[in-house]
Amino acid sequence: MSDLKDLEKKIGKVPRVFRDMAEKDPMMYDKILEFDNYIWADGSLTKQTKKILAIAITAAMRDNRALAAQMAGAKNLGVKKEEIEEALRVAFLLSGMPAYAQGRNELDALYE
Amino acid sequence: MSDLKDLEKKIGKVPRVFRDMAEKDPMMYDKILEFDNYIWADGSLTKQTKKILAIAITAAMRDNRALAAQMAGAKNLGVKKEEIEEALRVAFLLSGMPAYAQGRNELDALYE
Amino acid sequence: MSDLKDLEKKIGKVPRVFRDMAEKDPMMYDKILEFDNYIWADGSLTKQTKKILAIAITAAMRDNRALAAQMAGAKNLGVKKEEIEEALRVAFLLSGMPAYAQGRNELDALYE
Amino acid sequence: MSDLKDLEKKIGKVPRVFRDMAEKDPMMYDKILEFDNYIWADGSLTKQTKKILAIAITAAMRDNRALAAQMAGAKNLGVKKEEIEEALRVAFLLSGMPAYAQGRNELDALYE
Amino acid sequence: MSDLKDLEKKIGKVPRVFRDMAEKDPMMYDKILEFDNYIWADGSLTKQTKKILAIAITAAMRDNRALAAQMAGAKNLGVKKEEIEEALRVAFLLSGMPAYAQGRNELDALYE
Amino acid sequence: MSDLKDLEKKIGKVPRVFRDMAEKDPMMYDKILEFDNYIWADGSLTKQTKKILAIAITAAMRDNRALAAQMAGAKNLGVKKEEIEEALRVAFLLSGMPAYAQGRNELDALYE
Repeated sequence: MSDLKDLEKKIGKVPRVFRDMAEKDPMMYDKILEFDNYIWADGSLTKQTKKILAIAITAAMRDNRALAAQMAGAKNLGVKKEEIEEALRVAFLLSGMPAYAQGRNELDALYE
Repeated sequence: MSDLKDLEKKIGKVPRVFRDMAEKDPMMYDKILEFDNYIWADGSLTKQTKKILAIAITAAMRDNRALAAQMAGAKNLGVKKEEIEEALRVAFLLSGMPAYAQGRNELDALYE
Repeated sequence: MSDLKDLEKKIGKVPRVFRDMAEKDPMMYDKILEFDNYIWADGSLTKQTKKILAIAITAAMRDNRALAAQMAGAKNLGVKKEEIEEALRVAFLLSGMPAYAQGRNELDALYE
Repeated sequence: MSDLKDLEKKIGKVPRVFRDMAEKDPMMYDKILEFDNYIWADGSLTKQTKKILAIAITAAMRDNRALAAQMAGAKNLGVKKEEIEEALRVAFLLSGMPAYAQGRNELDALYE
Repeated sequence: MSDLKDLEKKIGKVPRVFRDMAEKDPMMYDKILEFDNYIWADGSLTKQTKKILAIAITAAMRDNRALAAQMAGAKNLGVKKEEIEEALRVAFLLSGMPAYAQGRNELDALYE
Repeated sequence: MSDLKDLEKKIGKVPRVFRDMAEKDPMMYDKILEFDNYIWADGSLTKQTKKILAIAITAAMRDNRALAAQMAGAKNLGVKKEEIEEALRVAFLLSGMPAYAQGRNELDALYE
C-alpha cells in the first residue's frame, strides 16, 4: 500500500473507489496507480499546477463528482483559492458560465 | 483597435473571426474583447499558465479548432513544449487518450 | 444592485452563486452581469425564446443544475410547458433520449 | 420518397447520408424519417424556431458537421442571420466562446 | 400497454418518466416506444451486448442518471459484473478515469 | 517494438502518433502501451466487442478522428458491418442522430 501513500501525497486525496479496488480488483488497481503516479509527479509543471488543470477540465466537462474530488485534493496540496478562481474563469470562457458557477459553488463551500 | 493589440499580447494570437467581427458586429466584438481582456490578464496565475489551462480544456472537450488556436497562442507567449505535453497527460487521465493523441499531433507539428 | 433586478427580469431567476459573488468578488460579478444583460436582452429573438434555447442547450450537455435553473427562469417569464416539451424533442434528436427524459422529469415536476 | 420531400420542407436540407440510407437500409431509414417528421413539424414552436434550437445545440456540443447541416437548412427555411447570431450568443454563455466563434465562421460564410 | 412489457423485456427496466408519459403525452410516448423497441431488439448484436454499449456510452458522457438506469437494466437481463467492468475500462481509455470511477461506484453498489 | 506488434493484433491499427512517440517520448509511450495492452486483451469481452464499444463511445462523443481510427481497427479485426451499424443505433438513442449519421458516413466509406 506504499504506492497509495505516494499517490495521496501527489493528488491530495484518493477517492474511496480506488481504496475499495485495492481489495476487489488488484490488477486494475495496480495499473491505475502506476499510471496515476506517472502523470501527477512534479515535472515541467508542479503537481499543484496539474491539480489546477484537473479542476478546469472537470468543470468544463460538467463532471461534478470529479470536480469536487480534484478540488478537495488541490486544497490539501496548498493550492490557493485565488488560483482556482482564475482557472474557473478560463473554464467559463471556453466552456460556459455553468462551469464557472458550479466551480464557484464548490470553491466557496470548501475554502470558507 | 488598441484593445485588440492588448489582447494579442495576452493570448498570443487572435482568431480571424474576431478580426472580422470588429467591422461587422462592433457591439458584440467590444463585449467579447472586454471579457477576454479581463480573463486573460496576469493575476494569481500568469497568462502562460492560463494558456496551458485553455489547451487542456479544449483537448478534453474534443474542440480541435479551439485547441489549435490556443496552442498557437501558447507558443507565441513562450510556453514550453514540455509544459504542454504534461498538461495533455492530465487531459488524458480525465478525458481519455484521444484528447492526448490529438494534442500530441498538434504539438509535434507546431513545435518541430 | 439595480443591474441584478434588471437581470432577474430578463432571465426569470438569478442563481444564488451570483448573489453571493456580489459581495465576495465584485469585479467578476460586474463582468458577468454586464455580459449576461447583453446576451439576454430582447432583440431579434425574445428573451422567452432565448430561455428555450438555454433549456435545450443545457439538456443536451447533461448539465442538470443549469437545466433546472434555466427551466425555473423560463416558467417565471411565462414560457409555456408545451414549448419546452417541443424544445426537449429537438434535444432528443440531436443529443439523445436521456436529454429528453431528464428534461421531462424537471418539466413535469415544475409545471404540475 | 414522398416522405423525404416532406422532411425536406421541414428541415430545409436532408443530409446525403439519409438519401443513401433509403437504398441501403430501408427499415432504419423509415424509422428515422418517421421520428424526424414528428419532431420537426410546426407545433407550439415553429419549424424555424426548432432549427434555431438545433443550431444552438450543435454549436454547444462542438459538432461541426451537424452545425453546418442545421445552419444550411435554417437558411433554406428563411431563418434570419440576426436570429442565428443571437442564438449563438446563448450558446457562448452556456457552452463557451468557441461555440460562438465556430458558429460565426459558418454563419458569415453561409449568409454573405 | 403490451408494448411497454415488450420494451421491459428488452431493456430490463423502463424509467418512470416513460410510464408517466403514457398518460400525459401518448403520442410522444408511442414514438419513443416504437423507436426504442426497434433499437433494442436482438439482431447482429444481442440485447445484452447493446446494454453493455449503453453503459459505456453513458459513462463516457458523464450522464450519471442514464448510467444508473442502463446498469440496472443490464443486471435484470443477466449481464455479468465482469463484462460491465471491462466495458468501463474501454470508457476509461477513451473518455477518462472519472468515467471508470463513477461506473465502478454504481457497479459495486448494484452487484454486491 | 514487439509490444507494438502485440497491440496492433489487439486493436487492429496503431495510430501514427504512437509510432512517433516511440522515438520522441519513450517513457510516455511505454506507459500508454502497457495500459492499452491491458485494456484491449481478450477477457470477459472479446477484443472485437471492445472495438464495437470504442466505436459507440467515440461516435457518442463526436470525436471524429478517434471514431475513424477505431472503425479502421475494427475492420482489420474482422468486426462485421452489421454489428457496427447496430452499435451506432445505440449511440443514436443515447447521444443523438448526428452520432449515427457520422458513424454511417465512416462505415459506408470503409466497408464498401
